[in-house]
Amino acid sequence: MKVALAQLNYTIGHFDLNAEKIIASIERAKAEGARLIVFSELSVCGYPPHDLLTHKHFVDRCMTTIDQIALSCNGIYAIVGAPSINTNPSGKLLFNSAYLLGNGKILDVYHKTLLPDYDIFDEYRYFEPNPGNYRLAEIDGMKIAITICEDIWDDQPTTTSFARSKLYRDAPMNHLAKLNPDMVINISASPFSYDVEERRLEVFRSNVARYSKPVIYVNQVGGNTDLLFDGGSMVVNANGDIIFKLKCFEEDYQVVETGAFDKAQPLPTENPSSTQRIERIHYALVMGIKDYFNKLGFTKATLGLSGGIDSAVVLALAAQALDVNNLRVLLMPSQYSSQHSIDDAVALAKKLGVQYDIVSIQSIFESFKNQLSPIFAGKPEDITEENIQARIRGTLLMAISNKFGHLLLNTSNKSEAAVGYGTLYGDMCGALSVLGDVYKTDVYRLANFINRNDEIIPINTIQKPPSAELRPNQKDSDSLPPYEILDPILFAYIEQGLSAEEIAGLGFSSATVNRTIRLVNMNEYKRYQSPPILRVSSKAFGYGRKMPLVTKWT
Amino acid sequence: MKVALAQLNYTIGHFDLNAEKIIASIERAKAEGARLIVFSELSVCGYPPHDLLTHKHFVDRCMTTIDQIALSCNGIYAIVGAPSINTNPSGKLLFNSAYLLGNGKILDVYHKTLLPDYDIFDEYRYFEPNPGNYRLAEIDGMKIAITICEDIWDDQPTTTSFARSKLYRDAPMNHLAKLNPDMVINISASPFSYDVEERRLEVFRSNVARYSKPVIYVNQVGGNTDLLFDGGSMVVNANGDIIFKLKCFEEDYQVVETGAFDKAQPLPTENPSSTQRIERIHYALVMGIKDYFNKLGFTKATLGLSGGIDSAVVLALAAQALDVNNLRVLLMPSQYSSQHSIDDAVALAKKLGVQYDIVSIQSIFESFKNQLSPIFAGKPEDITEENIQARIRGTLLMAISNKFGHLLLNTSNKSEAAVGYGTLYGDMCGALSVLGDVYKTDVYRLANFINRNDEIIPINTIQKPPSAELRPNQKDSDSLPPYEILDPILFAYIEQGLSAEEIAGLGFSSATVNRTIRLVNMNEYKRYQSPPILRVSSKAFGYGRKMPLVTKWT
Repeated sequence: MKVALAQLNYTIGHFDLNAEKIIASIERAKAEGARLIVFSELSVCGYPPHDLLTHKHFVDRCMTTIDQIALSCNGIYAIVGAPSINTNPSGKLLFNSAYLLGNGKILDVYHKTLLPDYDIFDEYRYFEPNPGNYRLAEIDGMKIAITICEDIWDDQPTTTSFARSKLYRDAPMNHLAKLNPDMVINISASPFSYDVEERRLEVFRSNVARYSKPVIYVNQVGGNTDLLFDGGSMVVNANGDIIFKLKCFEEDYQVVETGAFDKAQPLPTENPSSTQRIERIHYALVMGIKDYFNKLGFTKATLGLSGGIDSAVVLALAAQALDVNNLRVLLMPSQYSSQHSIDDAVALAKKLGVQYDIVSIQSIFESFKNQLSPIFAGKPEDITEENIQARIRGTLLMAISNKFGHLLLNTSNKSEAAVGYGTLYGDMCGALSVLGDVYKTDVYRLANFINRNDEIIPINTIQKPPSAELRPNQKDSDSLPPYEILDPILFAYIEQGLSAEEIAGLGFSSATVNRTIRLVNMNEYKRYQSPPILRVSSKAFGYGRKMPLVTKWT
Repeated sequence: MKVALAQLNYTIGHFDLNAEKIIASIERAKAEGARLIVFSELSVCGYPPHDLLTHKHFVDRCMTTIDQIALSCNGIYAIVGAPSINTNPSGKLLFNSAYLLGNGKILDVYHKTLLPDYDIFDEYRYFEPNPGNYRLAEIDGMKIAITICEDIWDDQPTTTSFARSKLYRDAPMNHLAKLNPDMVINISASPFSYDVEERRLEVFRSNVARYSKPVIYVNQVGGNTDLLFDGGSMVVNANGDIIFKLKCFEEDYQVVETGAFDKAQPLPTENPSSTQRIERIHYALVMGIKDYFNKLGFTKATLGLSGGIDSAVVLALAAQALDVNNLRVLLMPSQYSSQHSIDDAVALAKKLGVQYDIVSIQSIFESFKNQLSPIFAGKPEDITEENIQARIRGTLLMAISNKFGHLLLNTSNKSEAAVGYGTLYGDMCGALSVLGDVYKTDVYRLANFINRNDEIIPINTIQKPPSAELRPNQKDSDSLPPYEILDPILFAYIEQGLSAEEIAGLGFSSATVNRTIRLVNMNEYKRYQSPPILRVSSKAFGYGRKMPLVTKWT
């Protein structure tokens, strides 16, 4: 049987566009003789729809769109993800469902059993789990176990620093396997992180090992605000080999022949080397910028180009995601800015062909100091004056944004965001944080990857010691441990959830570890007001890490 | 039997302080001859602990603190809320539990069955529901059904605009009632909203009607960042009458005699008139400000006093929550500010005895315009210049905050936050939004309540038409519908989740409704970067309303 895998990029709530894309793929699959076409989880409305699911008119629109799509399913079957109404007298009002469409109508609806509720997932907020109705779909005599994303992730460990049990008490495939399916279809909305491909493959192989059935996996692709979906839809045969794989980070479509699964050649498995990790992050970030703008209907971006590494990398990524003619940057030197920083920034803007202006902040800074002088009389200069400069820059960038319609890209990195080394309403401004989930040491790796064929980012920008240039001869290392030490401590605390004692046990000084953790905790209030951050790791700041602001805990 | 109800104000993660308070109450109850003392849900760590629960060392500390508290339980029993470890091989790692302490040790642990996961609640993120272990506690021959908060809220409707089924499939009290308890104890962390008291009483009465048992209800009190807990612990007898009630908005403690429940006189039920609603909001906000500062260890606050109603109300509330000697405000007139606004602001500052400074923003604004003039050449003035002025004010306030250690109180109201009538990084700055869950029409009611005995807020501030004063003769009503129309539309959309059609059906013009909803949806990005907002309604902006930013849906 010919099965089409449709890996599409959906816009949340854009029912017309989503239906148009789905129906176009159905028509294509029909023309190519496919008997079944598979779309991803909640494809009709896009994932994650969040609290739009609590609005009746939004859910109604999901239903009418499914009906509309069903009309085009003649001579072909389709599996499409959408919410469905729980008609039981109690429980949450919705199921997260896979609709089997055919003969111009809805043939059956299958509900998700395992509802993820950790990190960025909150599915218990909206959905009732499948109350135990397990059945197979049958198409042309072929029996199919239809599962939805987490349903086959039953034996993952709990995601905390004290994981020791399995997260779920049930395994939907145990029920479905008893019905003796020929294959498993899994429709997903599985977000990218730089190590998720390996984890997915592990999950598919664990299922194959337990049930000896091939798995067809269809994921969505594209960026939805902070969440990036890499696609990477695939077919894993009953030996646990990947035999078909769709592209990552773009829409793709492939027709596979189920009769050929046994004879298909395994594709080479990729090796998650450090370089490949950086490459994945790079393409994910470019996709994230592109989709943020496209889906909002914006085309133009601005940012503050300092001559430092962070803004250089953001600009290089933006230049790949957007039309360089729509980029416009500001250089905003202060009295503490070095000439080489200005030169490096100009060199990058020229290299990329990006419009730039130089606006000195010195006279504005002087006028702030003048107006505040009666109040600040007798007080020495301190962090206040550094913050005023950063906020003048934020205000200038927002003025460009307001006057010309450029969205401001934030250039803070994850190391800074973690320890609060940034000015709220200053360099923390922006519509979207591009590097807020990338540690500083990885920002350097990204810069080297961007320069792999050509020196796009000036080598001087990569080699000089990082500095905010907000006071004379300032260096990041005056206030922070070296990033080579800071970043692994942050990773152990944020991604791995280890305690201070455990992190010190990895070979770091207790004083440095305690100070770092204290900085992370006390700066929760800054991150609360941060722009959305493109998520590339397994634990990004934002919805996936929900810490109390007012607390006594270090 | 004498039972002590201990309604305490916990700090999240402050185990030493929480344990000290709990143990002091136990000692007092012992001295007064109580046989049992009851504390609230997750009292050991404070509610909500959020993702601190994913850290092993945090959970370990909960356990050691329970052990420490148990040591003081000799000659008395205590019911204390804390997480407990799920020792089953699968499922979430924790239960949300009530510990029965006595004889210096843990006697039994009871797990919460119904885990709320809507609005501000996300308990499936951390907890496994009670897998069906129901038993009574027995103290001095009295059989007690121990329940945790949501456990007795089983028959509430689903909280969406299309509620028509019961939210939960199970009712823990159905299981417990079969064991024939003498009474029900419910330990809670039930957040305040201005109508929650009536809803709670309904729930208790529904339980009493079904099971004919008295209910002892112990809630926590105090503010934890955005979430406010009003306390209001009480005893409802088997007739559904409130016979004992603890204070709202402060710590309280009362010993009740269970033998007297039948004979006790019902307390008069309060009538939720509009005035009382405003009174409740008033005291909740004062408590919220106070606890935000106290628990963070800050004492000093600043804000921008414009002569308008919002900043006047925030200052009056702050003057009740904090020492007026620790308040310091800025008046920041622009060239468009009226003299009467300055006079009104000065009058209020003097009336309250608050230190104020006047800093004109005009010269700073000129220096911004000068620096931007080459880039803005030929462009007319527009919203950009208004935003620059608002951001200058934000920067000046943050300079006061940075230099002197005053936390900045944000003065935006819910109507503005809803439609995006505010400047990000300008008047949207602040550590805490005091009025972000109070519609403009209610801000006026708050002002009148504040003035109930004395004209604290100048009457002119209350009577003049609202204006941002960012361009000549500007009025809010130039850009927005009158607040008397805007606010009920916003309420119908945000609190009630109605569609445009349904709201128009209430008697509003479709054009106004559609424009309002479009404004709410397109300004999600601004609210994403808003400070935490003190929650007083059933649907506040913040964690309780999680909308996608990038979407095509109106």
